[in-house]
Amino acid sequence: VPPHAAAFLGSELGELGELAPARGPVALADVELPDAAPLPPLGEVPLRTDREARVAHAAGRSYPDLVRLRTGRIAGAPDGVAYPRSAEEVAAIVRACAADGVAVVPFGGGTSVVGGVEPLRGPHAAVLALDLRDLDRLLDVDARSQLAWLEPGLRGPAAEALLGSRGLTLGHLPQSFEYATIGGFAATRSAGQASTGYGRFDELARGLRGVAPAGELDVPPRPPNAAGPDLREVLLGSEGTLAVLTAVAVRVRPKPAARRFEAFSLPDWPDGLEAFRRLAQDGVAPDVARLSDLEETRISLAQAGDGTAVRALRGYRMLRGHATGCLAILGWDGDPDEIARRRSVARRVLHAHGGLGLGAAPARAWEHGRFEAPYLRDALMARGVLAETLETATTWSGLEALHGAVTAALRTALGARAIVMCHVSHLYPTGASLYFTFLRRAPEGEELALWRAAKTAACEAIAAQGATITHHHAVGTDHAPWMAAEKGEAGLALLRAAKRELDPDGILNPGKLLPTS
Amino acid sequence: VPPHAAAFLGSELGELGELAPARGPVALADVELPDAAPLPPLGEVPLRTDREARVAHAAGRSYPDLVRLRTGRIAGAPDGVAYPRSAEEVAAIVRACAADGVAVVPFGGGTSVVGGVEPLRGPHAAVLALDLRDLDRLLDVDARSQLAWLEPGLRGPAAEALLGSRGLTLGHLPQSFEYATIGGFAATRSAGQASTGYGRFDELARGLRGVAPAGELDVPPRPPNAAGPDLREVLLGSEGTLAVLTAVAVRVRPKPAARRFEAFSLPDWPDGLEAFRRLAQDGVAPDVARLSDLEETRISLAQAGDGTAVRALRGYRMLRGHATGCLAILGWDGDPDEIARRRSVARRVLHAHGGLGLGAAPARAWEHGRFEAPYLRDALMARGVLAETLETATTWSGLEALHGAVTAALRTALGARAIVMCHVSHLYPTGASLYFTFLRRAPEGEELALWRAAKTAACEAIAAQGATITHHHAVGTDHAPWMAAEKGEAGLALLRAAKRELDPDGILNPGKLLPTS
Repeated sequence: VPPHAAAFLGSELGELGELAPARGPVALADVELPDAAPLPPLGEVPLRTDREARVAHAAGRSYPDLVRLRTGRIAGAPDGVAYPRSAEEVAAIVRACAADGVAVVPFGGGTSVVGGVEPLRGPHAAVLALDLRDLDRLLDVDARSQLAWLEPGLRGPAAEALLGSRGLTLGHLPQSFEYATIGGFAATRSAGQASTGYGRFDELARGLRGVAPAGELDVPPRPPNAAGPDLREVLLGSEGTLAVLTAVAVRVRPKPAARRFEAFSLPDWPDGLEAFRRLAQDGVAPDVARLSDLEETRISLAQAGDGTAVRALRGYRMLRGHATGCLAILGWDGDPDEIARRRSVARRVLHAHGGLGLGAAPARAWEHGRFEAPYLRDALMARGVLAETLETATTWSGLEALHGAVTAALRTALGARAIVMCHVSHLYPTGASLYFTFLRRAPEGEELALWRAAKTAACEAIAAQGATITHHHAVGTDHAPWMAAEKGEAGLALLRAAKRELDPDGILNPGKLLPTS
Repeated sequence: VPPHAAAFLGSELGELGELAPARGPVALADVELPDAAPLPPLGEVPLRTDREARVAHAAGRSYPDLVRLRTGRIAGAPDGVAYPRSAEEVAAIVRACAADGVAVVPFGGGTSVVGGVEPLRGPHAAVLALDLRDLDRLLDVDARSQLAWLEPGLRGPAAEALLGSRGLTLGHLPQSFEYATIGGFAATRSAGQASTGYGRFDELARGLRGVAPAGELDVPPRPPNAAGPDLREVLLGSEGTLAVLTAVAVRVRPKPAARRFEAFSLPDWPDGLEAFRRLAQDGVAPDVARLSDLEETRISLAQAGDGTAVRALRGYRMLRGHATGCLAILGWDGDPDEIARRRSVARRVLHAHGGLGLGAAPARAWEHGRFEAPYLRDALMARGVLAETLETATTWSGLEALHGAVTAALRTALGARAIVMCHVSHLYPTGASLYFTFLRRAPEGEELALWRAAKTAACEAIAAQGATITHHHAVGTDHAPWMAAEKGEAGLALLRAAKRELDPDGILNPGKLLPTS
């Protein structure tokens, strides 16, 4: 946390006037760890049952996870961690655990922020973390069809490097990019920062292979067709509860020749939403499209400090009547001529809605820090600040009301000295996503209660608006209580029937996705 | 059948040298109809049990359906036809039939060409056709979100008229457009002639409501999200076997200001496929994109007769070295400036692959006759010719082999004096569809055996190539035997589990979608 940002946040979040000094997490040896229960024999599959491996697979990266890891009071740990090296070894593990009634938690990058990798054992005697890191190969490339089969343990950068050596890109850049894996992207219907252009991961993932206790699933990357319900869309987002994914066929593209970013200021939130709606519905949306509300714009610019460039930007906005306003960041990938054409169309739309071009610098600053927020969150936690995000999506006609309702719910739950801010980051013809960030000082020991109150208030407001409980963070344990509102009773029954069929003993990722009651 | 076309087909299909004179179907009174079994009381819901209603709901529009209707030897008939006027009446019918163990066949336009509306009763004592024609309202328009809720019984033209009065269009134009319904489009994952641009119906249908024996399903038209498996994608393509759809939220667009068509000649099939691949993968595909193979091009031009325009076109192609070649038809909708830009980009791609512009006339001729093929098929049947179509799709790298394998399979099954021709009509980044038409003289009484042999040979070839068994005709009864190849054993088990959950007694559209064995 840079000093000017710390000072600014202290003044916003208040009471003590300044932030507490950095405080580190407890040592590995001091983490409270239950004794490991016995696991079935896994033959040749590498297995670890040591403290380090178990603690490293005890949690994801949700705020409660981080609080527990930091204090050493973890909720539980897997009894062991298996590291299969092939789809066959994954199948052998699933078979062995099904036979012995041992829970299996598929583990990719461990970046879930919704409790998706909690080592819950459900009714079972033991729980095994199935770490897919060694399934990290590029299996096949069909360049003519722009398809590549990837193994699930490949992290974002490694997948891009393998594809990049063939002149290809996947273009999937979630904030978790550095650690998250191909299997995790598919299991959670991930969306990345350029998904408005490249498509969500559930669009990019054209084929899947997976292993369930009841058998193996194989969805070839055929074009869209009329051969009944789409099973790809059942496995995508199943979060390891229906099958362990062993390969994903992704759509790839030629690496773009150029990339361009540009920032704009929109007079107000409704203007910005209307401009973005036009971009999406006219089919001229940039690949990256991000619109901050008034508060996020204010906070971002204040946190940017007081350097010459920032002061110049502030002065320019003031001069042009944008003392307040909403910051928009647009990005284009591709051939330079095509970027120029698309940019010109987008500029016309933004200008028509009162947009003021701010040049590339603010957008490049965003691009530079695009994967940093999770690290900043850790740094803030170490100084006694709860920093959390949540996201949703709804139709264009519902966006303003949803924004207002969730902002109000969070403000009520967090009290006066809190920051609640939001941006739109994914555009669709019929609607868009909202991504909320909230910060508040959290006295030691009160973190989890505060988080729970804020999260519950926001989720209730989202459900009351008929919006989706999660646009791209997925369900995990945290959103499971709202799945009945999301899917309806008959919808939930359908998901439970799929689970019973593929995983009759419920060993796959217990307690995730579906409400436990 | 115009005289010059009849003469040409006679010379191609042969033996007798000319076609048999027109022969009409048997009279309604002469259709063999089993006695009607008793149906449960349906309260106020209009119900017909007369001969005309039962025969009209005894079949769809597959070739075997037409042969049976024409000869009066129908395979079966519903015991009655209910005409619900509201979603509540649909729910009441489903409840009553579930309670009494009576099969229910949802019936829209009756245009299924794969046996999707056959009045099969399965293990039940009676079967009711549930005709949705009176659910024909536009329920709601959210213009800002480009969404409209439509009732399932609305036919294509009526839906377009209702939307058109608000300046909107759905843009969904399958060959069955004049009769097929919104519910049928959704239940079968329909694709239309402009789906390359507007999207398949499974993309256009953003929300669904339906009634199953186990309860009511409601999928609101939320933007894509990460809240678990997508139930919309389970109901789409479920062909009335999981629920009766009672409302569909579709994506709508402003009516285009202009429409433009243009024809091209490509030197050969591989050139044409490569040009179309570039259009799709570069994101510059027109809204309508259709490429005929050498044979379809030859037949189409020959059937077009010998008028001045056709002779001029033939002369021009000859002169430019396109004595043979593949006809491509491209179409664009939208703002005239944008059409001009997109057309210019597409022309460059086609020229780079040896394409020769043929102007608008051949394309307009296609547009003019775009819904006529089913009528022509009836006319040919009346003159003793089997005329049938089937369709599939695969990756770009698999298209040539698939085309070769299916063509060879059909030629082998049909013998020497047959026409087997094909076109690509739907482009995706990773692949495309193939649509085959085949014609052969069918001696009276041998029609069904001939059809069965050809259809089976083509389906086996498609499955052996790993292609989809159906791109847009859906599964019905005809493709059900290949669903194990399409979905895999675990995939089929998953579909059966969904069916058991929503329709435990199996009353909804028995014998469709899933193999009966």
